[in-house]
Amino acid sequence: MILGKVTGVVVATIKHPFYVGRRMLMVDRLDEGGNETGAYLVAAAAVDAGVGQTVLVVDEGNSARQVVGDSSAPLRSLIVGVVDDVAID
Amino acid sequence: MILGKVTGVVVATIKHPFYVGRRMLMVDRLDEGGNETGAYLVAAAAVDAGVGQTVLVVDEGNSARQVVGDSSAPLRSLIVGVVDDVAID
Amino acid sequence: MILGKVTGVVVATIKHPFYVGRRMLMVDRLDEGGNETGAYLVAAAAVDAGVGQTVLVVDEGNSARQVVGDSSAPLRSLIVGVVDDVAID
Amino acid sequence: MILGKVTGVVVATIKHPFYVGRRMLMVDRLDEGGNETGAYLVAAAAVDAGVGQTVLVVDEGNSARQVVGDSSAPLRSLIVGVVDDVAID
Amino acid sequence: MILGKVTGVVVATIKHPFYVGRRMLMVDRLDEGGNETGAYLVAAAAVDAGVGQTVLVVDEGNSARQVVGDSSAPLRSLIVGVVDDVAID
Repeated sequence: MILGKVTGVVVATIKHPFYVGRRMLMVDRLDEGGNETGAYLVAAAAVDAGVGQTVLVVDEGNSARQVVGDSSAPLRSLIVGVVDDVAID
Repeated sequence: MILGKVTGVVVATIKHPFYVGRRMLMVDRLDEGGNETGAYLVAAAAVDAGVGQTVLVVDEGNSARQVVGDSSAPLRSLIVGVVDDVAID
Repeated sequence: MILGKVTGVVVATIKHPFYVGRRMLMVDRLDEGGNETGAYLVAAAAVDAGVGQTVLVVDEGNSARQVVGDSSAPLRSLIVGVVDDVAID
Repeated sequence: MILGKVTGVVVATIKHPFYVGRRMLMVDRLDEGGNETGAYLVAAAAVDAGVGQTVLVVDEGNSARQVVGDSSAPLRSLIVGVVDDVAID
Repeated sequence: MILGKVTGVVVATIKHPFYVGRRMLMVDRLDEGGNETGAYLVAAAAVDAGVGQTVLVVDEGNSARQVVGDSSAPLRSLIVGVVDDVAID
């Protein structure tokens, strides 16, 4: 899994039915120091997450489909947590 | 999932039967600013998409097979949306 | 599979139910010489592993779900060993 | 999926039974301009393809196993087409 | 699939039960010219392979689990051949 920061929302008129009514978020990957890297992915959200938040993303299709409860969803990247901090134990 | 721009169509005479009659599109990955990166992938399309359009691509085999309704399709990359804009919420 | 060093713990208040009560560890990938690379991933642990230890990580969802015994877990990266040494046979 | 050029044949005496009698081809990934990149993968072929040809490769295990009709094949990369051209529609 | 050279053996006292009694090998990826790249992965072996040998590696979990005959193995990378040569057909 990776950490990222939500930077925007993808707006698409023409899309697969699965995506109708779903928010697709731009997520910029963070480096270990918590800085944005410019490398992004587009993810759906399993928890409430908004622009500016740091999130935990699972980038794997079967995980994503289980969470949305739709075994035929064309989906790979999913936000599963909002991160408060990275502690040194 | 990633964003890309459709830049061309792959023409192949010799191909696996699954690909007969299917359009295979060259998709150049976009960076967060919407600029082409030169890194591409070849994708089938689940929605109508043409050269010059910005698209949302799921790069995962099980997603792709579900959408085309063929559990034996040798397919990994699929266009699932045409993107109008990336908004800052 | 890859080798990494555990460098911290991810703290998240808002998260998918699967992650409640689970430790999510920051793991910095190591190069062949055993040096940290700065490229990290976030992993759950199937064995007891703490900050500063070198670990073996499987980065694949089906592996991870089998080990945690939850076929619907949104999980991809899992620590499966604590590494003592890399020997030249 | 990606485009590549076949550059050679992998010769292995000791191998898993699945690979006995199968040609394993070296495929150099091509950039968008059709130039070799030096990044390669080793692929089996679902269509007849030889050294010097440009090919379409699916790099995903389930796709590859479906095509060879062996659900236990330890296989990930498969050539599914010989590419004649990339057209701008 | 990729080509690599076996460079060492990973020694781990604490590990998931699946790994007890199994050799985990460090494999350095080779470039197209057969030179080590410094990018490695840790793999189990489906054929007998030792330090210094060039090997064919499948980096995909379902392949690996089929070969070891354990559908719950937390495993992704597997050596499936020892390579003698790469021929230009």
